[in-house]
Amino acid sequence: MIHIDHVGLATADLQTLADLYTSVLGFRAGERETLPEQGVDVLWLHAGGGANVELLAPLEADSPVGRFLEKHGAGMHHLALRVPDVAQALQRCRQAGLELIDQAPRRGSGGTLVAFVHPKSAHGVLIELVQTAHGE
Amino acid sequence: MIHIDHVGLATADLQTLADLYTSVLGFRAGERETLPEQGVDVLWLHAGGGANVELLAPLEADSPVGRFLEKHGAGMHHLALRVPDVAQALQRCRQAGLELIDQAPRRGSGGTLVAFVHPKSAHGVLIELVQTAHGE
Repeated sequence: MIHIDHVGLATADLQTLADLYTSVLGFRAGERETLPEQGVDVLWLHAGGGANVELLAPLEADSPVGRFLEKHGAGMHHLALRVPDVAQALQRCRQAGLELIDQAPRRGSGGTLVAFVHPKSAHGVLIELVQTAHGE
Repeated sequence: MIHIDHVGLATADLQTLADLYTSVLGFRAGERETLPEQGVDVLWLHAGGGANVELLAPLEADSPVGRFLEKHGAGMHHLALRVPDVAQALQRCRQAGLELIDQAPRRGSGGTLVAFVHPKSAHGVLIELVQTAHGE
């Protein structure tokens, strides 16, 4: 069965947003990663039940998250769905006529396989398909 | 501990979006409700792990979701966080200086108590605090 894996939030100010989600709302701060090839700083915020929040701050303006902030401002950036087999899920999306950003799964953070579906064909929602290292 | 309860998606076309999330992505269609006082049609889509998707379609243009669609187009509308005590969580948000939409908890769907925090003070994210009938 499909699970919500995480919700990605874009912000220009990772630390202030992290403080809100930990001190005020009660999330637990997790791993922080800098991904230079994607131009983004990432901070994971853990909740109960396995659905988490991923904070994203751009390293430079000319990066995917930088351009998102320029266009939309801070806010919800993507919805990540955990699937048993990302290649299979991607194939179903292709057959349904969705526009894919990734034609094949690629390596995500923490040993995951990921692929993105374009918001244009998914009612404005950037969908990330995620397969964890251990399947489900 | 806090949990992601659901992600609310706004659309003008509930059925097409529901088909995408059920037939293609593997969510299970749940309850459908019309809430005339909020001007919205709701369809619940269930995933594993207790974090679900709520589809929202406006009954008329001049409604909260109708105005959201007019301004932003279809997409992610709100992030709902399940808390043990919504009055307490709301008080923490108030003390942290967040702008509240609801000054006190109000009745949500299915016997829940809910309150919304304004996106202006939460980095562009409309946050719903949800307390289920049975606490956690």
